[in-house]
Amino acid sequence: MRADDNEENLYHEQLPNVGTLIEESGRKLCRPSTIARKFPIISWLPRYRSAYLVQDFIAGFTVGLTTIPQAIAYGVVAGLEPQYGLYSAFMGCFTYIVFGSCKDVTIATTAIMALMVNQYATISPDYAVLICFLAGSIILVLGLLNMGVLVRFISIPVITGFTMAAATTIGSAQINNLVGLKGPSNDLLPSWKHFFTHLPSIRVWDALLGVVTLIFLLLMKQLTKIKWGNRLVWKYLSLSRNALAVIFGTFLAYILSRDGNQPFRVTGNITAGVPPFRLPPFSTTVDGEYVSFADMISTVGASLASIPMIAILEIVAISKAFSKGKIVDASQEMIALGMCNIMGSFVLSMPVTGSFTRTAVNNASGVRTPLGGAVTGTLVLLALAFLTQTFYYIPKTTLAALIIAAMISLVELERISDMWRSKKRDLFPFVVTIVTCLFWSLEYGIVCGIIANLVYILYSSARPQVLITLEKINGHEVALVDVKQKLDYASAEYLKEKVVAYLNQQNCKVHLAVIKGQEINSIDYTVAMNIISLYGDLKALDCEMICWNWNIGSAGVVCRLKTEMRSIFKFNYELEELIASHFDTSNTASTVTIEPAQGQVNAA
Amino acid sequence: MRADDNEENLYHEQLPNVGTLIEESGRKLCRPSTIARKFPIISWLPRYRSAYLVQDFIAGFTVGLTTIPQAIAYGVVAGLEPQYGLYSAFMGCFTYIVFGSCKDVTIATTAIMALMVNQYATISPDYAVLICFLAGSIILVLGLLNMGVLVRFISIPVITGFTMAAATTIGSAQINNLVGLKGPSNDLLPSWKHFFTHLPSIRVWDALLGVVTLIFLLLMKQLTKIKWGNRLVWKYLSLSRNALAVIFGTFLAYILSRDGNQPFRVTGNITAGVPPFRLPPFSTTVDGEYVSFADMISTVGASLASIPMIAILEIVAISKAFSKGKIVDASQEMIALGMCNIMGSFVLSMPVTGSFTRTAVNNASGVRTPLGGAVTGTLVLLALAFLTQTFYYIPKTTLAALIIAAMISLVELERISDMWRSKKRDLFPFVVTIVTCLFWSLEYGIVCGIIANLVYILYSSARPQVLITLEKINGHEVALVDVKQKLDYASAEYLKEKVVAYLNQQNCKVHLAVIKGQEINSIDYTVAMNIISLYGDLKALDCEMICWNWNIGSAGVVCRLKTEMRSIFKFNYELEELIASHFDTSNTASTVTIEPAQGQVNAA
Repeated sequence: MRADDNEENLYHEQLPNVGTLIEESGRKLCRPSTIARKFPIISWLPRYRSAYLVQDFIAGFTVGLTTIPQAIAYGVVAGLEPQYGLYSAFMGCFTYIVFGSCKDVTIATTAIMALMVNQYATISPDYAVLICFLAGSIILVLGLLNMGVLVRFISIPVITGFTMAAATTIGSAQINNLVGLKGPSNDLLPSWKHFFTHLPSIRVWDALLGVVTLIFLLLMKQLTKIKWGNRLVWKYLSLSRNALAVIFGTFLAYILSRDGNQPFRVTGNITAGVPPFRLPPFSTTVDGEYVSFADMISTVGASLASIPMIAILEIVAISKAFSKGKIVDASQEMIALGMCNIMGSFVLSMPVTGSFTRTAVNNASGVRTPLGGAVTGTLVLLALAFLTQTFYYIPKTTLAALIIAAMISLVELERISDMWRSKKRDLFPFVVTIVTCLFWSLEYGIVCGIIANLVYILYSSARPQVLITLEKINGHEVALVDVKQKLDYASAEYLKEKVVAYLNQQNCKVHLAVIKGQEINSIDYTVAMNIISLYGDLKALDCEMICWNWNIGSAGVVCRLKTEMRSIFKFNYELEELIASHFDTSNTASTVTIEPAQGQVNAA
Repeated sequence: MRADDNEENLYHEQLPNVGTLIEESGRKLCRPSTIARKFPIISWLPRYRSAYLVQDFIAGFTVGLTTIPQAIAYGVVAGLEPQYGLYSAFMGCFTYIVFGSCKDVTIATTAIMALMVNQYATISPDYAVLICFLAGSIILVLGLLNMGVLVRFISIPVITGFTMAAATTIGSAQINNLVGLKGPSNDLLPSWKHFFTHLPSIRVWDALLGVVTLIFLLLMKQLTKIKWGNRLVWKYLSLSRNALAVIFGTFLAYILSRDGNQPFRVTGNITAGVPPFRLPPFSTTVDGEYVSFADMISTVGASLASIPMIAILEIVAISKAFSKGKIVDASQEMIALGMCNIMGSFVLSMPVTGSFTRTAVNNASGVRTPLGGAVTGTLVLLALAFLTQTFYYIPKTTLAALIIAAMISLVELERISDMWRSKKRDLFPFVVTIVTCLFWSLEYGIVCGIIANLVYILYSSARPQVLITLEKINGHEVALVDVKQKLDYASAEYLKEKVVAYLNQQNCKVHLAVIKGQEINSIDYTVAMNIISLYGDLKALDCEMICWNWNIGSAGVVCRLKTEMRSIFKFNYELEELIASHFDTSNTASTVTIEPAQGQVNAA
């Protein structure tokens, strides 16, 4: 355990508990052998011990208490009836047991997923379910194709910007519900505009309960920092804060409603019962009109790219955050997530992914294996079967407070100061992402951020470090060119320009340029063409050129293009020796031979 | 001069003639001093010698003889009346004298520009002129913003694929004109379909003249390879082949038409006279209906991105090809090109750029300064004023032969075998470009090719070379991690995964991992976060971590994020000494100090 554990908040308690099954089976779970690779359960279930059962049960139960109110709340964020949130909250838990590779990850819909599916779900719930199925299939295929590596191109500044923008948008949309107003939409500016133009309509009791609940939640989150008494008590009290807030609000609303005078806006009827298991809807009916599969696809359009991307991003980021000291197989996580979505779409689920809040609760509750998910899933099913009448009395303002509290914890302002202190340059992709996400759309915003950030990689690939020094060796002026990075087509011309410009600037006559090749491990056709062109340029400036100690592969690319070039590649010389031999017997001792039959280059 | 000059065809005679003014004024012309930077004429005109006048005149005249028939032909390719080709062929020559930095470059419309403007020009010539103005403005702004560096991201395979596809499309469209058929469009497949479905309608005399002209042109091009007699005669004969073919065809058509029986399809009436100098059309009338500026813009749409891009690509590639031993200021060439287009749009020009054919003719004719362009421009103006009646008799089949011959020389099949021999991997972006250009569109095709090629840069940036070796030093197992390339956010996780996976694979206990930092010259926020995370991962594996000899900048990025990390950065030790001191007095001797006030990191 880290020494500074007590200084970290819940979301940073990321170290797995030492001595859990997962760590015992080591690579087996997070990097399974080939047989068990696609079904991690094969590697850990046979080694399951009865002692873990209690811990998995406690963790699963705690997560369940957090999941149920959050699921109802996110169902509303998605623009669906509350039970759809619960429909989305159990199948993922069961499926992940089989395919998941990280014990802590908890699958259910998240605030961001709910927000992204909102514009389609409000047309018809069938759209949300179809997106769940299609996104799941896409994620599964990407996982099977081992495309997990693609998420590496989303940097922390871009993820931070996206998360903050999404959290701000979601939290802002709930500000109306918090004070008993009917929110107009899920957009940032309209929500605040509606709030400020409807101040007189604020319902006092709703506002009071909402604000008190919000303060309660934020204070409860800090309980883990208390250092006296039994810290475990504080921890579990903190973990159960969502459940406590909902139970309190529901009880209050129920009591007060008994005299027929409900002071709060409550959730209302929730359809009871477990959803049927059936195929996802490949066509639907909107306003009495038949909508075909093709029409549905053209409506959901670009979200079939953005929703899988964000879902993958969330689960990979979370599983990595909770797997210290182990390698997360991003592609296996994608397979698991794809299966969770596909299976979910058979029970009317909307798109799901790893939930940071619940995963943190799971980890903090000391879960041992993914089996904890079974407890959570069962709890949700039981709630659907027997508790929906109780849910009638959940005040809407309580749910709003729940969401806002969760969103506040996602806005990590210290990240901005971290970036400012450590690398100011990284604020640029961050700002691009957050601004475009807030004021354009989350989907395009993250793409803009990724592109803005890629510019850095491309820029630096186009400007490799090239060090040129002029030395007088054996009475000859020799320019030593040291390329500090790999060359590719974007940097090919830069090298050429640097060398030619350098020679043009010298006042004395430079007789020879030596291009050191130690760090040039692979070149492409464009680089080879530029090397040949540089050779011609230098000839025009009456300067000879030697490529010194290049590897055979790179030399081969050049020599196969122009066999005359083979005489300029020199190997296995000391520099002094090279210069001496060059000016003694210029161009006679070729050190590369080409066998034209195979097009091979060999060092002599 | 290169020794193998005689083995090269015209298009590869790229060395400037030694001893020309340009070389005497050296950097002055191609890299002018700050004052003359934007007006290269300032640096070379005062040093102009009367002796150059003859050479500039001969070159300008030769280029003019090539330009006039090509201009008429490309006017037709653009879907405009022939005189528009001539309108596009003089203003660029004059403007480039002032702003151009490379003596050989000749500005006029090219086959590719004509093809790309065709779909708009066929609506109304005003569209072509407006695109010329807007493209010019965009190019000028990009040049002033020094964006010339962007063309580096277009690799030779992509350029080759684009050029071959464009040449194939343009040449194919002329196959119908060559045999006296009326071609249906400028698209590849419809042209050939029309040709094969209309074989019975072929006009024999047109086909005969066309094929003979084509063979004549292709043979004449080879004249420079003749090694006996006066090579200069052969060279000028070869250079004048276009003019000869047109004069012969026109004369033949004129003679044969005198008995009132014209066997050839001829160009027909060309409006005589120099175009008026007036503002480009910011609105127009199509079929009697008024079209506003906004409507015109929305019609031309994406071509305002693609036409400037291709124009810049052509001129930068050409000026580089003809500037051996000197640095081409790509941004200055863009400024010149932008001005040429803007000025051209005042005299009804369509978009223009550097022409490879005519630039090569200019170079081969021994031009000394950009002043040669004045002769070419004047010749075109004279032709417009006095020769349009003669142009009436130019057979269409002759123009088709001219275009096809020019396009054949653009299809350099040996490039494909070069790529195959030197770097097969580079065939992928080439194939992507040529296929999408041929069967989708030139605009999108080149973008697809660029993206396909960027994947290589991004892929390799995500997988830096990381070498890990296990050494037993002073009885301790130490993992030495050597990062061979720069780290950026895309590669940050790769390093972490490599190290953790390596340690997981070891059977023995590794006590310490040393991350060597010699080659890590700059890291970003994401890399720093991953270094901190790696430190935590290794702690979970009971392995300590040292960052050895990182530069102060990179160490600072990490330490400013998390001050505890400063104890793991070690400088100025030998490796043995480092290990010894580490295990002797572990974690006591910090070698980095942080001054929190400035957030600075200093090596002690």
